[in-house]
Amino acid sequence: MTQIDKSVVDAQNDKASAALKADYAALGEHLSRRGINIDAIKAKVAHYGVAVPSWGVGTGGTRFARFPGAGEPRNIFDKMDDCAVIHRLTGATPSVSLHIPWDKADPAALKAKAEETGLTFDAMNSNTFQDQAGQKHSYKFGSLSHANAATRQQAAEHNIECIEIGKAIGSKALTVWIGDGSNFPGQTNFTKQFERYLEAMRSVYKALPDDWRIFTEHKMYEPAFYSTVVQDWGTNYMIAEALGPKAYCLVDLGHHAPNVNIEMIVARLIQAKKLGGFHFNDSKYGDDDLDTGSIDPYRLFLVFNELVDAEMRGAAGFSPAHMLDQSHNVTDPIESLMVSAMEVQRAYAAALLVDRKALEGFQEENDALMATNTLKKAFRTDVEPILAMARLEKGAAIDPVTAYRASGYRAKVAAERPAVSGAGGGIV
Amino acid sequence: MTQIDKSVVDAQNDKASAALKADYAALGEHLSRRGINIDAIKAKVAHYGVAVPSWGVGTGGTRFARFPGAGEPRNIFDKMDDCAVIHRLTGATPSVSLHIPWDKADPAALKAKAEETGLTFDAMNSNTFQDQAGQKHSYKFGSLSHANAATRQQAAEHNIECIEIGKAIGSKALTVWIGDGSNFPGQTNFTKQFERYLEAMRSVYKALPDDWRIFTEHKMYEPAFYSTVVQDWGTNYMIAEALGPKAYCLVDLGHHAPNVNIEMIVARLIQAKKLGGFHFNDSKYGDDDLDTGSIDPYRLFLVFNELVDAEMRGAAGFSPAHMLDQSHNVTDPIESLMVSAMEVQRAYAAALLVDRKALEGFQEENDALMATNTLKKAFRTDVEPILAMARLEKGAAIDPVTAYRASGYRAKVAAERPAVSGAGGGIV
Amino acid sequence: MTQIDKSVVDAQNDKASAALKADYAALGEHLSRRGINIDAIKAKVAHYGVAVPSWGVGTGGTRFARFPGAGEPRNIFDKMDDCAVIHRLTGATPSVSLHIPWDKADPAALKAKAEETGLTFDAMNSNTFQDQAGQKHSYKFGSLSHANAATRQQAAEHNIECIEIGKAIGSKALTVWIGDGSNFPGQTNFTKQFERYLEAMRSVYKALPDDWRIFTEHKMYEPAFYSTVVQDWGTNYMIAEALGPKAYCLVDLGHHAPNVNIEMIVARLIQAKKLGGFHFNDSKYGDDDLDTGSIDPYRLFLVFNELVDAEMRGAAGFSPAHMLDQSHNVTDPIESLMVSAMEVQRAYAAALLVDRKALEGFQEENDALMATNTLKKAFRTDVEPILAMARLEKGAAIDPVTAYRASGYRAKVAAERPAVSGAGGGIV
Amino acid sequence: MTQIDKSVVDAQNDKASAALKADYAALGEHLSRRGINIDAIKAKVAHYGVAVPSWGVGTGGTRFARFPGAGEPRNIFDKMDDCAVIHRLTGATPSVSLHIPWDKADPAALKAKAEETGLTFDAMNSNTFQDQAGQKHSYKFGSLSHANAATRQQAAEHNIECIEIGKAIGSKALTVWIGDGSNFPGQTNFTKQFERYLEAMRSVYKALPDDWRIFTEHKMYEPAFYSTVVQDWGTNYMIAEALGPKAYCLVDLGHHAPNVNIEMIVARLIQAKKLGGFHFNDSKYGDDDLDTGSIDPYRLFLVFNELVDAEMRGAAGFSPAHMLDQSHNVTDPIESLMVSAMEVQRAYAAALLVDRKALEGFQEENDALMATNTLKKAFRTDVEPILAMARLEKGAAIDPVTAYRASGYRAKVAAERPAVSGAGGGIV
Repeated sequence: MTQIDKSVVDAQNDKASAALKADYAALGEHLSRRGINIDAIKAKVAHYGVAVPSWGVGTGGTRFARFPGAGEPRNIFDKMDDCAVIHRLTGATPSVSLHIPWDKADPAALKAKAEETGLTFDAMNSNTFQDQAGQKHSYKFGSLSHANAATRQQAAEHNIECIEIGKAIGSKALTVWIGDGSNFPGQTNFTKQFERYLEAMRSVYKALPDDWRIFTEHKMYEPAFYSTVVQDWGTNYMIAEALGPKAYCLVDLGHHAPNVNIEMIVARLIQAKKLGGFHFNDSKYGDDDLDTGSIDPYRLFLVFNELVDAEMRGAAGFSPAHMLDQSHNVTDPIESLMVSAMEVQRAYAAALLVDRKALEGFQEENDALMATNTLKKAFRTDVEPILAMARLEKGAAIDPVTAYRASGYRAKVAAERPAVSGAGGGIV
Repeated sequence: MTQIDKSVVDAQNDKASAALKADYAALGEHLSRRGINIDAIKAKVAHYGVAVPSWGVGTGGTRFARFPGAGEPRNIFDKMDDCAVIHRLTGATPSVSLHIPWDKADPAALKAKAEETGLTFDAMNSNTFQDQAGQKHSYKFGSLSHANAATRQQAAEHNIECIEIGKAIGSKALTVWIGDGSNFPGQTNFTKQFERYLEAMRSVYKALPDDWRIFTEHKMYEPAFYSTVVQDWGTNYMIAEALGPKAYCLVDLGHHAPNVNIEMIVARLIQAKKLGGFHFNDSKYGDDDLDTGSIDPYRLFLVFNELVDAEMRGAAGFSPAHMLDQSHNVTDPIESLMVSAMEVQRAYAAALLVDRKALEGFQEENDALMATNTLKKAFRTDVEPILAMARLEKGAAIDPVTAYRASGYRAKVAAERPAVSGAGGGIV
Repeated sequence: MTQIDKSVVDAQNDKASAALKADYAALGEHLSRRGINIDAIKAKVAHYGVAVPSWGVGTGGTRFARFPGAGEPRNIFDKMDDCAVIHRLTGATPSVSLHIPWDKADPAALKAKAEETGLTFDAMNSNTFQDQAGQKHSYKFGSLSHANAATRQQAAEHNIECIEIGKAIGSKALTVWIGDGSNFPGQTNFTKQFERYLEAMRSVYKALPDDWRIFTEHKMYEPAFYSTVVQDWGTNYMIAEALGPKAYCLVDLGHHAPNVNIEMIVARLIQAKKLGGFHFNDSKYGDDDLDTGSIDPYRLFLVFNELVDAEMRGAAGFSPAHMLDQSHNVTDPIESLMVSAMEVQRAYAAALLVDRKALEGFQEENDALMATNTLKKAFRTDVEPILAMARLEKGAAIDPVTAYRASGYRAKVAAERPAVSGAGGGIV
Repeated sequence: MTQIDKSVVDAQNDKASAALKADYAALGEHLSRRGINIDAIKAKVAHYGVAVPSWGVGTGGTRFARFPGAGEPRNIFDKMDDCAVIHRLTGATPSVSLHIPWDKADPAALKAKAEETGLTFDAMNSNTFQDQAGQKHSYKFGSLSHANAATRQQAAEHNIECIEIGKAIGSKALTVWIGDGSNFPGQTNFTKQFERYLEAMRSVYKALPDDWRIFTEHKMYEPAFYSTVVQDWGTNYMIAEALGPKAYCLVDLGHHAPNVNIEMIVARLIQAKKLGGFHFNDSKYGDDDLDTGSIDPYRLFLVFNELVDAEMRGAAGFSPAHMLDQSHNVTDPIESLMVSAMEVQRAYAAALLVDRKALEGFQEENDALMATNTLKKAFRTDVEPILAMARLEKGAAIDPVTAYRASGYRAKVAAERPAVSGAGGGIV
């Protein structure tokens, strides 16, 4: 196992700590004038964690091409090494989310690796949007909603297998995202297809342990281009209602129609006690899977504004899971995931700065200008010193990207892991 | 009351009937080769009706300007005269939907006018998106969801008044569309605002007679430009669930996010037994309120494909109300409404031609190409002879627009009704 | 003329200056560690100005309703008083942009009012999207592109009249935005309509003094809902090319298709030496005309990143005009315009903080992560102390909204200016 | 070479010809009443051809998965066999468009295969969006616009190589589509990137024979998800202008922002004498590459309405290339391409039915309703008998899909061509 040497982190932190202390002190004084205790915010930020998807540490791609980087992880153990680096330097990503069958391995070996890397296992992810070698029934025309009962059963059994693996390694949730839908008007009967989906999901739900949750994920389109079975939060909510109290809706920030107000969907799902969690990323056009906060950081803040609001008022049934879900096509995935984890923390920290009492007053009085300024004031506060100090105090890096580059980790794993040639091609 | 002279219609029909008979006969033979009885289709089409909104017969406008036409109706009685012309010539619009307070009048006079014109009253529409002269509480910051309880009560009472008026004139439904929302992040608390809305709507629901239905209408944006209380079908569905069995969701075709699959939403609401009805129109960009079928006629067909599917399989609780809701900025509203009513009929007729047994077979076999071709074959069949023959047989016009123009109706009412100057102005 | 008393501003500034000095000093030290001289940035910000549209100080509305506020300006002189308040408190809006015929008045009186208020006149705006009382030819079906030559000539003459008025009061530019387009496929012939537009614009261009510029503004839709003559920057660029060297393209941030990369359009127009200027505002859905920076502040920053890049490298022909263009439906327009002017300054200040040398290096090396972090680092720096100090030093308010509210200006003008009743109504 | 037996086609045609003759006669009579000679329309349709992309005959996929069908073509020769089937049965696709390096082969062998299959070669397509084995410089960060001069040169040389191959096999055009862009704000400098692109393209343009054309293709996003070098028609037009008279813009129907009026872009490019041609397909969300006309057939008709308008008035420089460009993920590609070719013909035939003289009159008089009805009347005419008769008369199939299925072609090639396993996987 390749690791980041403590001396590398320390050396980088030594260089940056004086400036950080000055920035932190200045921010502390500023916030104190606003009636905010900076240490209390820091404590909350330090406590916050977001899960990393195992598949995120490999270079992503599009239907046109994939351009791999050096040192691509070969298996779940390499991936967990990479994830450990992310957590080592940011202190913000204590858990990993596995994808079956990509990450299938001996549960004991997985648990040992988790112990070695200090990571835990977040939600399990099933895969019925691809065919695996030797698979009996193809998912070309759907999986859990397929017209053929045997195909549906195969897909349901795969999900149950994911639960079994998860139980063995200490996971407590299953995330179900399917590619089922259609590419042509008339290809499927919307109603029958949805009924078949619900029936298959009910059989999966039955296999769910009492202390587990099941997350269903909606997505407007892709890979299906005319209709998708779980196309939006409305359908997702119908599913969670139909399945039962352990079923929740997962919100991926990139899975909505253009212009949709996502923070409002978050509020509605909280109100319905059905918000299961998030797949964080950012997007400009479709499901672009760009780095979280890289395109519209204010939107991310507004989502966290809803989460902090729910946290503060102790909304019933509110306990969302947080995970990154991105495709890193042109960056080192480890760097992107580190920066993204920090962006999520940043949005959280800024949302904590909102003067909620003042906000409520402005809302009661319909003082739209001051209400929105209250949010903007929190958003534009540069909370970087809070994040960095939280990292420093837990032994992570003040500047994770610089420390990572200084460590030479990528070069080291590139030497161990064989180069991968550019895949992709005929798919246009 | 200005009317269309029977002689005018007869004269126009006489000119066109020979060609129509030939077209109808040819189509009948063609359909018979496809196993379809043209007369059965015609009977269904003849039976079909769509309601006209009272406000639709006046020239519409935008926030930039309104360019009135000649003979603008001065009040609900003029409007009903115009609506009577539409039904007289198309035979497709037997009812009118009133908007309160715009159409407020003595119920007895309304009933008398209905008798005189041969029209009936469809759903009542309330208005809490504008302030009326002398109104106690302003709706500038909302109505049914306003932060102020007295404003919410005023809005609820107005809706109850609409029910009362409706009861007096034989309506059986109330449609509630509100402009409530916000223009700035933070202006309102999404959750509290929605709870207030639900509370106010419950008081309206209580006043609903047992044989009435209440329709709530979702809309993504406008007049509120950051958030809308009933922003999409998901929230609309939550409302219908919360209110009870007489509450249903209304779908306005122009109220969705870009690219959204509307026919799928229709299917989901049918499945949930909560589809209340439609506001038909067409749009290219936002809530453009263009003439039905003028921009994407295939989408309209696909919506009707769902409706006919539900009708054929006798879906439980399926009884949607059909209404046009358009803004006629550059055409004679009577002409646009006639053409739009026929476009709705056209979509219905074409959807009736779908070979549903074959379609089901293709769907079972995942024969996407033949499934979609089955829809396309029905769609591309020119059903105009069926529609025209249905009109001819009920004494309406083969070609309503030509007959209308020949009648000189617009010039006649222009002489009776004073010219209106172009309104609009400071609103940019 | 009602004015803001110096004592009110001073009193507010006195309360806030100690905190500001502390914040400014801390930021100065922080920036100094990043190699940036805070005073140099402040000087640039202090120099920056954005024009206010005369119509912006009245309450806006939608096609559904308008809810006026207290003290609505009655004419251009009231409007200039309001504009003077905005500049008095922010020091950021030295000029006003007039709209003809709304602001038509004796040029000598206008100049006197300008002298009295210390304002200057920015670009003139013509109006051929509404009919004025007594107007010979209606613009219902277009103006500069109308099928009828006499209507086109009337519209061209109106634009020439705007130039004449502008010459008399010291303006140096004409902005032409038209509502011309169509609501139905086939309503107009795209090509002929555009040729007619070009011909009419050539006659306006001929009347343009040598030291003037003409700005054409593109917009995707509204008030026309199927097609618009100047629908996007491609057509806008064709126009500027066709007209000549004094013709430039104006970019309104809210006039684009969903998801469009506006900062890239800005870059292309700079490259083509055809960027004339901006109408700043923000939007979530369509041409929402929300307050600048209220929805997506990072997008605004990215636009300014292009502007500062062009400024720094001395791009040829680069001299864009900056103007706000918003509709204030639920706020006091004066407050919204003050905040928006500051948001524009904020984006400018943050863009000035970008380490452009580092950025260029990262771009050369395809270090996408560090390149984007370079922008994010500048964006997340809270530049409020710079803006506030610039205001304080020029005698404006540290916190303009608080000072404005303390001044009682709105109540004073409400006493002088008669209340306006809620307009809007039949337009749905 | 596997072929479709004439007897199979004849047998199918025999079954369907009586009905076709009846339908054709009835439609002829109907059109004759509208003053249209059906045989003249048929002659134009019979003459019309659309090119097939070589890559279109293989099953497509998404970044999530690819589900191959039976008998996937192994190389360009297999692909040309498949293309020959399409033309054999539809008579509508006389040419094939090659993609280099996918279709690289001995030019003599290609010419021989063309002769054998009766096909010709349409535009050449280069590929600089993927890395090929052994390629010196990677396109991960761009090709023709790459920051590195050597990479740009490599990409330019590849394009020149495509011209050379094309010259050897009789092609007359090069289509250049690149994936260059960026995934993060700041990753590239828009202006420098575009300048580099233009410089590289100039070197390609220089190598273009005098009787060739070069087509550049714009695309809003994908594979780049923040910015694309040739993002829209405005930039595309700037390129065609910068390069010279042999440079034209190619319009792919799926490459635009949501809601964009594509037919208007077509009109603008015709007006600018820069419309090079089309990649036909359909889409609901993004670049979905669905079958042409499958989602919005009226939009396709409106595009052809512009083309026929230009054809009729003899627009200068008007000679667009027509090609299909689709991804067939759930259908037999041969079937989809046959149906799509017919949909293109259908849109063309319907556009030929537009009464252009009447339309012009309605446009002159601003009779929006009758103008749009004129288009709708043409669109809703079922022209299938015209298309089918044109096919029958040239020895193709009345019903190509049925004939194809009867022929057993897919099973035959599946026996010859080894099965391909489902690719895709790590790319999410």
